[in-house]
Amino acid sequence: MLTDFYEMTMSNGYFEYGFTERQAVFDMFFRKIPDEAGFAIFAGLEQLVEYLRNLEFTPDDLAYFREKGQFSEAFLEYLANFKFECDIWSVKEGTPVFPYEPVVIVKGPVIQAQLIETMVLLTINYQSLVATKANRMCRAAQGRPISEFGSRRAQSYDAAILGARAAYIGGCASTACVIADRDYRIPAVGTMAHSWVQLFDSEYEAFEKYARLYPDNCVFLVDTYNVIKSGIPNAIKVFDKILAPQGIRPKAIRIDSGDIAYLSKKARKMLDAAGYEDVKIMATNSLDEYIIRDLIVQGAKVDMFGVGENLITSKSDPVFGGVYKLAAVEKDGKFVPRIKISESIEKITTPCFKNLYRFYNKETGQAIADYVTMRDETVDTSKPITIFDPVATWKKQTLTNVTAECLLTQVFEKGRCVYKLPELEEIKAYCAHQVDTLWDEVKRFEHPHRYYVDLSSELWNNRNILLEEINNIQ
Amino acid sequence: MLTDFYEMTMSNGYFEYGFTERQAVFDMFFRKIPDEAGFAIFAGLEQLVEYLRNLEFTPDDLAYFREKGQFSEAFLEYLANFKFECDIWSVKEGTPVFPYEPVVIVKGPVIQAQLIETMVLLTINYQSLVATKANRMCRAAQGRPISEFGSRRAQSYDAAILGARAAYIGGCASTACVIADRDYRIPAVGTMAHSWVQLFDSEYEAFEKYARLYPDNCVFLVDTYNVIKSGIPNAIKVFDKILAPQGIRPKAIRIDSGDIAYLSKKARKMLDAAGYEDVKIMATNSLDEYIIRDLIVQGAKVDMFGVGENLITSKSDPVFGGVYKLAAVEKDGKFVPRIKISESIEKITTPCFKNLYRFYNKETGQAIADYVTMRDETVDTSKPITIFDPVATWKKQTLTNVTAECLLTQVFEKGRCVYKLPELEEIKAYCAHQVDTLWDEVKRFEHPHRYYVDLSSELWNNRNILLEEINNIQ
Repeated sequence: MLTDFYEMTMSNGYFEYGFTERQAVFDMFFRKIPDEAGFAIFAGLEQLVEYLRNLEFTPDDLAYFREKGQFSEAFLEYLANFKFECDIWSVKEGTPVFPYEPVVIVKGPVIQAQLIETMVLLTINYQSLVATKANRMCRAAQGRPISEFGSRRAQSYDAAILGARAAYIGGCASTACVIADRDYRIPAVGTMAHSWVQLFDSEYEAFEKYARLYPDNCVFLVDTYNVIKSGIPNAIKVFDKILAPQGIRPKAIRIDSGDIAYLSKKARKMLDAAGYEDVKIMATNSLDEYIIRDLIVQGAKVDMFGVGENLITSKSDPVFGGVYKLAAVEKDGKFVPRIKISESIEKITTPCFKNLYRFYNKETGQAIADYVTMRDETVDTSKPITIFDPVATWKKQTLTNVTAECLLTQVFEKGRCVYKLPELEEIKAYCAHQVDTLWDEVKRFEHPHRYYVDLSSELWNNRNILLEEINNIQ
Repeated sequence: MLTDFYEMTMSNGYFEYGFTERQAVFDMFFRKIPDEAGFAIFAGLEQLVEYLRNLEFTPDDLAYFREKGQFSEAFLEYLANFKFECDIWSVKEGTPVFPYEPVVIVKGPVIQAQLIETMVLLTINYQSLVATKANRMCRAAQGRPISEFGSRRAQSYDAAILGARAAYIGGCASTACVIADRDYRIPAVGTMAHSWVQLFDSEYEAFEKYARLYPDNCVFLVDTYNVIKSGIPNAIKVFDKILAPQGIRPKAIRIDSGDIAYLSKKARKMLDAAGYEDVKIMATNSLDEYIIRDLIVQGAKVDMFGVGENLITSKSDPVFGGVYKLAAVEKDGKFVPRIKISESIEKITTPCFKNLYRFYNKETGQAIADYVTMRDETVDTSKPITIFDPVATWKKQTLTNVTAECLLTQVFEKGRCVYKLPELEEIKAYCAHQVDTLWDEVKRFEHPHRYYVDLSSELWNNRNILLEEINNIQ
């Protein structure tokens, strides 16, 4: 029921015009990578699969539609007995993806493929957004672990939970979100809030009481009053008095305000001088990939980061603009390509039932380009393949010594899930490995090199023929 | 279970140290209005109330905590029998609110008040964000209705649904989201997607088929191929051929790409020339308050707007930074104020158990200033009241002829809800009325006048005494 009203009126229309069996092909793709980055990370497939496996309309839903007075009884009957029958192919979670390539393809009765549009987009858009952002931040941190701390600033409940999941895929080490740990086994971590420190009569007492209770897990928040004059001295005093006699090493201190570069250096010196060289320093406070990078450049002594709102909402660019467009329609048993021209050139779609490949250098494993083909085209890498830019067609490249991997895996076959969902850890590892196959120039934060997404000659020709045809009609 | 892990470790700590009955007062407030606007709209209280009414821990939750090995059995037993016992005061949904004033106050056993932090913030932050943004867009549209169309770009499922609710509070007329209609009775509207137009062999056929099915609800999307050459002529043809003979007036056309100012003027002329002066023009395509305002300034002939991602994510500033801070703690039967100083001046909190008033001009009803007081202070408007800026204290103003309204309503009393939740329509109307009480200068989009939020002398003194005390300790 989380759908746009027009999906229902259109589906009712398709039903009324006898299109219940009429097959259509829809592509999900996106046009722009958030933050003008070089690539995005695809995520959210598991939740999409769960949704589609359980897709049904309850008697309450039907009563609601009946009340609207716009739907035929026969259509409501169809919904009551709804059985999902589509084929779906999708890129795997954790894969780097690029604009204008199909990342999900839905083929099936148009009435069904249309109905699921909103949920396909909603599910993939949000998790891809956060996985992409998390990956940027983790790359900025150069191996230092990042914890996702954004629940309270997430755009509602599911966003907090699924955002934690997506952040983990993108590279984060842990989350503060309890439910993400319970349901997805993403390690939940947590220390203390300022309120813990304030509740006791002194900062020293607050730290002491915490250390007595959680001696093995001491991470003190040192900025409630004054980091240098009070927070760190009190932390060290408690380390000495409570933990040292038990032979327990403290874990870390956390700084949540002020000049992190300056304070962390100063804190490092104080901790080292007191014999706590192994105690880590954690920084939080509206961090993002740029601040993290700058802190490291400035020699800040930060060992771990906690990131909140800038990650969970992808604050600097909070929309992943996936769209879902009709690419082909069955006519007389064959798929006829469909195009949308629109008034804005960047909104023109690529028609046809398609497939998606990625070329890798056979020796280095480096990703070279993506290649969108007709569905039934075979890509034979035993011979040289010439690819060209679909806009600047004179820009050509002949590939030899490459392998081609099909990026689209079948997930549903006639409504039945045929894909074994990988474990989250597996997705996370796959993501890290796939990002490693990209050139550094594509991974750059500012002005990255544009990765090539080319069309096969056959697909390119089909697209041009269709464009010409439609121009002639008008 | 949607909470941060540290809420649990801290609560366990409070429990272990015998603070189960120790009372504390927490304030929710925010420091910055999104988009550097002059005010925000408070929303989300209804969902917070629902959550708190049903707050409990299931055996599965307890098993999860037990497995973590950090919580005492006695604490888990406490959670198993958890009964919410706090008092809560809150601003009403739809109220314009300002930085640094308490919008929610929670008073109760510290162990409980701490536990709900994440959910209080998450719930209020997101809906306030969207209600605030919606209100800006609706003001920009100057009475032209705006539909919320953002589900597919929302940051996950709840965001789509609750975002539609918040947008409605802020002033939107309708939504595309079916479930928001079913559950909150926000009118759901919808027309057709490009896929409907593409599915048929021609644009004309697509419109014709739609008109036959939904003659009373004809809104044609005219930009699939070419607005001027094809979309509008086809729409007019169908109006003439299908609707006119039935005596039905078409509703509207929708333009989703290209230069909306130019296309809408051209479309208006074409529709008028064909005798469809009453047919409305709807514009969609990444609109926000600035584009809407500019379109109107440029004389665009747009009668209604549909807004997607820029509203549902508040794209230009997607975080509502509400925080939840300890303000006072019970000691020997009295509330002792607590402050957080931090390394950043803007993060210093206002201590004490407080109350919040708004002064209105007795004759015009215009809002003059907000006034934060000690909880037990009375505000007597029968005598002149001098208020002053809490930072620039020499800036004073003496108020006469004003009324003072307490903005905080009791919502929970010892864990029992004592507040009758208003209907959504009532909230929406209240919001519109309250926004009307603000000066135009506060409502300006750029560089609005800063609305006064002043502290009473007593509160201001208490705060300063505490600041001095802590400085002396260090």
